[in-house]
Amino acid sequence: MQRYFLATTAQIGDTVELPADVSHHLIDVMRAQVGSQIEVVLDNQQAYVATITTVEPAQVTLNEALDSDSELPVNVILVCGLPKTKEKPELIVQKATELGVHQIVFFAAERSVSRWTAEKVTKKLARLQKIANGAAEQSHRQVQPSVHYVKKLTDVLAQFPAQHRLVAWEESAKQGETSALVRELQATQPGETILAIFGPEGGLSETEINQLTAQEVVPAGLGPRILRTETAPLYFMSAVSVWLELN
Amino acid sequence: MQRYFLATTAQIGDTVELPADVSHHLIDVMRAQVGSQIEVVLDNQQAYVATITTVEPAQVTLNEALDSDSELPVNVILVCGLPKTKEKPELIVQKATELGVHQIVFFAAERSVSRWTAEKVTKKLARLQKIANGAAEQSHRQVQPSVHYVKKLTDVLAQFPAQHRLVAWEESAKQGETSALVRELQATQPGETILAIFGPEGGLSETEINQLTAQEVVPAGLGPRILRTETAPLYFMSAVSVWLELN
Repeated sequence: MQRYFLATTAQIGDTVELPADVSHHLIDVMRAQVGSQIEVVLDNQQAYVATITTVEPAQVTLNEALDSDSELPVNVILVCGLPKTKEKPELIVQKATELGVHQIVFFAAERSVSRWTAEKVTKKLARLQKIANGAAEQSHRQVQPSVHYVKKLTDVLAQFPAQHRLVAWEESAKQGETSALVRELQATQPGETILAIFGPEGGLSETEINQLTAQEVVPAGLGPRILRTETAPLYFMSAVSVWLELN
Repeated sequence: MQRYFLATTAQIGDTVELPADVSHHLIDVMRAQVGSQIEVVLDNQQAYVATITTVEPAQVTLNEALDSDSELPVNVILVCGLPKTKEKPELIVQKATELGVHQIVFFAAERSVSRWTAEKVTKKLARLQKIANGAAEQSHRQVQPSVHYVKKLTDVLAQFPAQHRLVAWEESAKQGETSALVRELQATQPGETILAIFGPEGGLSETEINQLTAQEVVPAGLGPRILRTETAPLYFMSAVSVWLELN
């Protein structure tokens, strides 16, 4: 069933008018009619089944609350060195949203070839946020992840507090470390926040790794193969789900 | 260090002439010179450090064998219902190769919108194989995964035997099953083969699921969120690595 996020509060039995973009997608694109059912998620992060009662304007009545929960038991913040191309941040945002992320922060890493100028940031973030919102609907999330841009890596740690903090580091794997990620996942309690940092193409610099480890961010390998900058965060998201949802 | 696959056998100290495509990439694109070092993987799936001794023709001498092993302890076969777009099979092949897959089989699922005609198959597979080969070099694999196309799902099981066989099934997750994947990974011994089947957009049909379960393929959920057809195999590959390499 098609799912939409509505920035509103309501009770079972209430009738809610759909905003223009949702109405357009539902009525004009999906050709839904009076009587069709959809799922809506309200401001309380609760999903409901709703029935279309009128199409002009598009309105739905809330039938019942869904008791399924599609959110990870922990909050995950992905922190990614800005990749080279326009497509890679979009891929990270779309896939990480499907995989349950809560916040995605891009930062200008030492080795990031791209930089977002101040004028560009708002437009870039708006586009990425739209991708996150769409992916959240499609994957039947109850939360739309938020997308951020922070210029300096050192500012990220101050702005995004977390009980568990990891940095994906190839050299850690090369030195034979194979258990930091699982150890950290084992130590995580429901409701806590895990923040994981990933380098851009070419990886994080030694200076950046040192800045992070000085603040007790844990270096963790993601297996013996070299993962591209956009693949590593998706590996990490899958690891969180496997460990905390299927184990 | 740049890594290349050479379809040849040789001993430490031997000099090997590089094929035209490798020579072009190494000398013309990467601007490597006499004395530069590269990594090569030979037919024995062993990686070596090698030094360029001449550039015209491009030749290298094998210095030493590398003792790092970047292969998963098990063989993974991904079986994917053919997705709608040209880009999705490419994304699956590239990312699954980084994540350690051994064979990728596309098949025309009941709900696959695309079909590959007999004339198209060779060209499509050649392109996907090239993507796999490039990703295997970049992720420092010792094996180049092979890419296949099989028309019928029922033929896949006969052609690709495996000790462990799973089918990713959304309904399995909806029914509250959360442990089949981990249980199967726990039962897997080094050297064994795991085959995992994924539907196209819209999923596998009930008939297909019944065909598979009749042959004792195990239905497994991949968490409570709905993953796109190209995301599910990458989640699965990450799960195999986390469970068998980091645990």
